[in-house]
Amino acid sequence: MTTTVKAYGVKSEKAELKPMDIKRRETGDDDVEIKITHCGVCHSDIHTARNEWGGSTYPVVPGHEIIGRVTAVGKNVHNFTEGDIVGVGCLVDSCQTCAQCKNDLEQFCENGATFTYNSADKHLEGQQTYGGYSTDVVVNKEFVLHIPKNLDPAGAAPLLCAGITTWSPLSHWKVKKGDKVGVIGLGGLGHMGIKFANALGANVVMITTSPSKAEDAKKLGAHQVLISKNEEEMAEHRGSFDLILNTIPVGHKMDPYINLLKVDGTMVLVGAVEPLEPFHGGGIIMGRKRIAGSLIGGIKETQEMLDFCGKHNIVSEIEIIDIKDINDAYERVVKADVKYRFVIDMASLKN
Amino acid sequence: MTTTVKAYGVKSEKAELKPMDIKRRETGDDDVEIKITHCGVCHSDIHTARNEWGGSTYPVVPGHEIIGRVTAVGKNVHNFTEGDIVGVGCLVDSCQTCAQCKNDLEQFCENGATFTYNSADKHLEGQQTYGGYSTDVVVNKEFVLHIPKNLDPAGAAPLLCAGITTWSPLSHWKVKKGDKVGVIGLGGLGHMGIKFANALGANVVMITTSPSKAEDAKKLGAHQVLISKNEEEMAEHRGSFDLILNTIPVGHKMDPYINLLKVDGTMVLVGAVEPLEPFHGGGIIMGRKRIAGSLIGGIKETQEMLDFCGKHNIVSEIEIIDIKDINDAYERVVKADVKYRFVIDMASLKN
Repeated sequence: MTTTVKAYGVKSEKAELKPMDIKRRETGDDDVEIKITHCGVCHSDIHTARNEWGGSTYPVVPGHEIIGRVTAVGKNVHNFTEGDIVGVGCLVDSCQTCAQCKNDLEQFCENGATFTYNSADKHLEGQQTYGGYSTDVVVNKEFVLHIPKNLDPAGAAPLLCAGITTWSPLSHWKVKKGDKVGVIGLGGLGHMGIKFANALGANVVMITTSPSKAEDAKKLGAHQVLISKNEEEMAEHRGSFDLILNTIPVGHKMDPYINLLKVDGTMVLVGAVEPLEPFHGGGIIMGRKRIAGSLIGGIKETQEMLDFCGKHNIVSEIEIIDIKDINDAYERVVKADVKYRFVIDMASLKN
Repeated sequence: MTTTVKAYGVKSEKAELKPMDIKRRETGDDDVEIKITHCGVCHSDIHTARNEWGGSTYPVVPGHEIIGRVTAVGKNVHNFTEGDIVGVGCLVDSCQTCAQCKNDLEQFCENGATFTYNSADKHLEGQQTYGGYSTDVVVNKEFVLHIPKNLDPAGAAPLLCAGITTWSPLSHWKVKKGDKVGVIGLGGLGHMGIKFANALGANVVMITTSPSKAEDAKKLGAHQVLISKNEEEMAEHRGSFDLILNTIPVGHKMDPYINLLKVDGTMVLVGAVEPLEPFHGGGIIMGRKRIAGSLIGGIKETQEMLDFCGKHNIVSEIEIIDIKDINDAYERVVKADVKYRFVIDMASLKN
């Protein structure tokens, strides 16, 4: 048995997002049924809606920064109850048995993780998963997160993707008090990177091409701003960074940033999935430096991030929109005209 | 006071190597005076002699894989005595006080390490350091290595550069029994990488474009050979390597090798100092993979490598030449026509 609920999605790669009806599965024994209250707007939503990465199956209902209220739970669900404020991020299922899942890295599930939208749905044959631009969702209990009560639910929504994407590398590479951490790019990802690195006690340097971003970066927690086009400033910071979080979403020249790393320093890419420009091998050979990648985070790590946010009262900087304004919001995201994340008030989508 | 000794070097970037006289400093209180018996021929020797990396100061006397016999020691030298068989690698001095030196990473000395040739000589004003294509050398005791007595001195010479260059990443990234280690390229570096990875108990896969190298690779210790041009074989090994030691000495396409790494796997570049071809950011983001660099190793680590070689009876595969044949040897190195390292019998250069 399935339930029909309202959603917003696209029927083809050239289409605008429009209201549509989608099916959700019956709440199973291991499931949590959630009334969605907020959903963040991630650039990946746009890439998938527009098939810019290839592989989109239509209709696409985007949204993987989901906050909602539990409306029902299956009989095997003991850690959530009706009325709880919960979150769902980029993952809604995985095999739970492979080495990566056992190691709390469900995003790298060897049997293929089920992503929140545009993955084959294990429960509804022939249907892909539909994301959070919707009134309700049913999710396996292992992929539902507790949202600390002190956090604003709207501001918490982007933690489920932008948050964990930037938290995971800072946590995995063990950023600690006094480390010098650079954050390249001040967008949805970068602004979370600054907040987390600051809360972890690091000396945070915002690295940007735009002097106009300096003031905002400092308000968000950056201790210094380094203008990457200023060669003198870049020379001053040469060889001094323990970790650089690189959120640039497109191919770019990495050599100037590699030069900023100290011996054994790491630059982590979280944005650029496409080809990077050639970099000099000598740049990483001298100083035993590393270029690494990082993809969201596992469920355990996501909960740790949320708990950290609760403790430090960290949420995303957002602009709340109604669902009817989603197409305009997409245009503004593409132009990087948002500080720093749109979040849809899902009450604006009525069943 | 200085001593004049015989050497082989070049007076300009277009010149052939010829006999010349050079000055060595008087043996100071902290110095070890060494009669050189063997010197390996490294591709860096050729790059420097021919100014292919820029920055060469002439005359250049190459050679940083030095084996010799101690002929005298300064009064502060207590761990070497006349007659000891010793080695000198790529480094002959560093500040000994900076964070990197204190951390046994003299190759990254913050005040500038003194390399064995073509660095400013701290002891002889206005003169650059001269390497091991020479009858004698005087070196600070902190940069002299003990050579285990059971090792053939000629075969041990390449351990001082090719050996430590491949040992250091295997040791630093903690290769252990059962790890799957790939070695790309079967030359002076690659053949040592295979020997070390095998001795460390890894499952060693030689990765090469040339099926003709399979038999040799297996004799050296590779358990399997993977032909990188064979897409089917590459697909079989996809996502399975803990570490890949990449010894390719020129720019190349890294994506196919990145695909071979497992989650959290690392590919270490030790050969290509020049620009690499563009790689896909998504290739390292999916699987949290790393591309790292590594440069020779510090003195402590070099001694550990030599001790490991003594224990496991590991030396380099070499072809011994007389110094008069060095120019022909250079041509053969450039054509990769050597299995796997030339070593000069320095007795062929008479004072």
